[in-house]
Amino acid sequence: MPGPNEYFNVPLRRVAIGNTEEFRQPGAVKAAVAEFISTLVFVFAGSGSGMAYNKITGNAPNSPEGLIVAAVAHAFGLFVAVAIAANISGGHVNPAVTFGLFVGGNITLFRGILYIIAQLLGSVVACLLLTFTTGGLETPAFSLSGVSVWSAFVFEIVMTFGLVYTVYATAVDPKKGDLGTIAPIAIGFIVGANILAGGAFTGASMNPAVSFGPALVSFTWTHHWVYWAGPLIGGALAGVVYEVFFISHSHEALPGSDY
Amino acid sequence: MPGPNEYFNVPLRRVAIGNTEEFRQPGAVKAAVAEFISTLVFVFAGSGSGMAYNKITGNAPNSPEGLIVAAVAHAFGLFVAVAIAANISGGHVNPAVTFGLFVGGNITLFRGILYIIAQLLGSVVACLLLTFTTGGLETPAFSLSGVSVWSAFVFEIVMTFGLVYTVYATAVDPKKGDLGTIAPIAIGFIVGANILAGGAFTGASMNPAVSFGPALVSFTWTHHWVYWAGPLIGGALAGVVYEVFFISHSHEALPGSDY
Amino acid sequence: MPGPNEYFNVPLRRVAIGNTEEFRQPGAVKAAVAEFISTLVFVFAGSGSGMAYNKITGNAPNSPEGLIVAAVAHAFGLFVAVAIAANISGGHVNPAVTFGLFVGGNITLFRGILYIIAQLLGSVVACLLLTFTTGGLETPAFSLSGVSVWSAFVFEIVMTFGLVYTVYATAVDPKKGDLGTIAPIAIGFIVGANILAGGAFTGASMNPAVSFGPALVSFTWTHHWVYWAGPLIGGALAGVVYEVFFISHSHEALPGSDY
Amino acid sequence: MPGPNEYFNVPLRRVAIGNTEEFRQPGAVKAAVAEFISTLVFVFAGSGSGMAYNKITGNAPNSPEGLIVAAVAHAFGLFVAVAIAANISGGHVNPAVTFGLFVGGNITLFRGILYIIAQLLGSVVACLLLTFTTGGLETPAFSLSGVSVWSAFVFEIVMTFGLVYTVYATAVDPKKGDLGTIAPIAIGFIVGANILAGGAFTGASMNPAVSFGPALVSFTWTHHWVYWAGPLIGGALAGVVYEVFFISHSHEALPGSDY
Repeated sequence: MPGPNEYFNVPLRRVAIGNTEEFRQPGAVKAAVAEFISTLVFVFAGSGSGMAYNKITGNAPNSPEGLIVAAVAHAFGLFVAVAIAANISGGHVNPAVTFGLFVGGNITLFRGILYIIAQLLGSVVACLLLTFTTGGLETPAFSLSGVSVWSAFVFEIVMTFGLVYTVYATAVDPKKGDLGTIAPIAIGFIVGANILAGGAFTGASMNPAVSFGPALVSFTWTHHWVYWAGPLIGGALAGVVYEVFFISHSHEALPGSDY
Repeated sequence: MPGPNEYFNVPLRRVAIGNTEEFRQPGAVKAAVAEFISTLVFVFAGSGSGMAYNKITGNAPNSPEGLIVAAVAHAFGLFVAVAIAANISGGHVNPAVTFGLFVGGNITLFRGILYIIAQLLGSVVACLLLTFTTGGLETPAFSLSGVSVWSAFVFEIVMTFGLVYTVYATAVDPKKGDLGTIAPIAIGFIVGANILAGGAFTGASMNPAVSFGPALVSFTWTHHWVYWAGPLIGGALAGVVYEVFFISHSHEALPGSDY
Repeated sequence: MPGPNEYFNVPLRRVAIGNTEEFRQPGAVKAAVAEFISTLVFVFAGSGSGMAYNKITGNAPNSPEGLIVAAVAHAFGLFVAVAIAANISGGHVNPAVTFGLFVGGNITLFRGILYIIAQLLGSVVACLLLTFTTGGLETPAFSLSGVSVWSAFVFEIVMTFGLVYTVYATAVDPKKGDLGTIAPIAIGFIVGANILAGGAFTGASMNPAVSFGPALVSFTWTHHWVYWAGPLIGGALAGVVYEVFFISHSHEALPGSDY
Repeated sequence: MPGPNEYFNVPLRRVAIGNTEEFRQPGAVKAAVAEFISTLVFVFAGSGSGMAYNKITGNAPNSPEGLIVAAVAHAFGLFVAVAIAANISGGHVNPAVTFGLFVGGNITLFRGILYIIAQLLGSVVACLLLTFTTGGLETPAFSLSGVSVWSAFVFEIVMTFGLVYTVYATAVDPKKGDLGTIAPIAIGFIVGANILAGGAFTGASMNPAVSFGPALVSFTWTHHWVYWAGPLIGGALAGVVYEVFFISHSHEALPGSDY
């Protein structure tokens, strides 16, 4: 049985590239299956909540209630999606998380690509299922709301920085201690908090897979690059900052701890 | 005292049928009492919140606020219902969970039937108590809202798949580690997230006991089979998928863990 | 340092009466101070949220948004109030919990009386502070809303049964295991879930201290007995049921555990 | 690896002043960086949620929905902000917490000043980022709403007392035990609960850094002293009360624990 807080240690640290052998390892395939299912479950609840809002309000403009629906659906859904994959794949559920972990040397290139493919597939299948189960309603793509593309770009960078920094501090850092127990909750809830701010401006994606599924199924690509570039840059920045400040250098020793 | 994360280990793994002797064991009876009480507490809060919404809005149509009320009441209520039965019965509180665990070989047939009877009774008693305590208001049965019966059927399958997969990953999997501590929260919150999506289309039951009590007390059986077949199939699917991919085969060894 | 999950073990089990010596023990006085502060913090947020709703809506009738405000304020506030007293007094914050623990033999009569006095004082001081800090707004007393006094009475019994049963299962039961870590969250959230149901009918007090402070400060005593008798009976019932079924008799042995 | 619940033990206990050497220690600088980032992440979500509300409602007056948006954004955001700094700086994210810990002898004067500077900078940078990312919307400063300055002053004292008392009970107290695991959640959620009460009267800051950033960026200083004096006094009071009652004196021994 794993000791306390081992469950996010699956990605190998300090291994940069990997090789195609990984695709044949049962562990990598299982991890990809776990990422696929987690992203499907997350996007089904998250995008589904937006479609439910549109249905019961007759496509009303956004409102405080709409923000709360989106925030709670994504906070609760992502918490669970991270938790249920944590022991198998590390629970990324987000290409920006995978990329941020790659930049910090916490996952190999090959495994990272495998994860991202699985995440994108999970999101697309969730949107196709939503199209069927809602009787053909549109899966609404992310779009800017009253802000310039550069404002939106920076908005997504800042929010995703907070998300991936949270992943590092609570799930990746070997000194995380008891924080590992509540890591999936923290990862879900920072997304919920950010949606209450950014949801009214960019939709608050923080996750290229979350944006890709609805964009593909509704075939709407306006400003779609913002939802890739912003999260990937924010995630990479978090990986660099966290590694440089808090992992690469030695920590202040804690009295009573053994390192 | 049980070690960390033992509390969901009550159901015996890999025992398929059991026998009628089980009904005479005090453990099985206690477990059934725990399932009865947990389901009563859960349905009382969950269905009660719907009746409260109907009362204070004068039976208004569904709204984002109504979805939030339902999602929070069921998320918080199910979290607690699972937690308070976890050490005694495993905290199923849902025939689809019990069936999904049976399909995966994690509970015997006889004990499973006992659990489901207790869950149905708990739901019915909750609805009778709600009828009395609200001064005779109707306990509203689940119904389809603007979708075909097949859309609703698949909707319930997908949502319940997510729920029972969460039960497997956080509570049943012997490798769950620290996840066991927050398992009841995850189980409650995936239901909350799914209600924000499915609540506007099928009512988002994911639980035949939750649908059965209001249907019996209000004697409304339209499309009732959807709320049995969908959750049972979704739960069974989750049991098969999780067992095949993540339990039956050996896991990737974690460095530092002893398996 | 206490081992895992010891923190709710402060009340002595199986000691029925105690004696006046207890009042002179520093532990009992400290526990009473902790109960006073926790109840003050809880009622300040809980009753304050009702006053805030009345202010910003101009005393509008109850609404789904009002139910959500009350549910979240009480769920979050009680979780914290229980947590911050857990290690010192056991974190009752509620005469119905104290009475339910007394009935089950988990606290002495004298200590129980001390706790209840401290809880009532905490609630009254919270309401006086609210009167000052809100510039003299009324602290609204609990009242029935469209239901008979007997319906309300049973409503409070059922909801408080769920609350005190949760205290037993997650905090009192020596076999609680990891559940102890999330016990304060469960205790707070069952109150939040019940408010979404009962808030529209009885106000969903489940706690005589919560009802007493506003009643005294606004000097409104209509049906006040319901908010004592209902919670006390519900709490006692939970104590009896939990002790009889799950503590007094020996448990099913868990494989791998040492009891 | 730190043992369970060590993560909040970083601040040295019982050391009052410190010296300027501390500024040259890598640990102190890292802690300041962690406080800067955590406060930035928290204020970005918290103040951003207020700006989102103003945008999508056209600067409507406060409403129950607005209170819920603010409460959830700050509860979730502060939980995460505390968690991600907990192992590095202790996760104060608030000058009132730092001051309350200084008064109780749990952080040196020099380190405390460093923390507060970092917190203020984090808040200002968050507000500047919000100004850019929202396309130039105003970052709304805290203001009184229908209450006298003395009512507001006491309101902030009482609410911050609850917050800093929670920090002491769940994160600072060496006897906290398992509570340490959920401490960041408790610290975030007491702020959420208090916002549902105080948000309609004072804005419910409880945190001078949270008030300072928007005040500076919008250059609005009316009653600004209330948002410093109230939280600092409330925090100091909590430090004194908790230390005098629950830390300085010896505790009641727990049966089965080793102190």
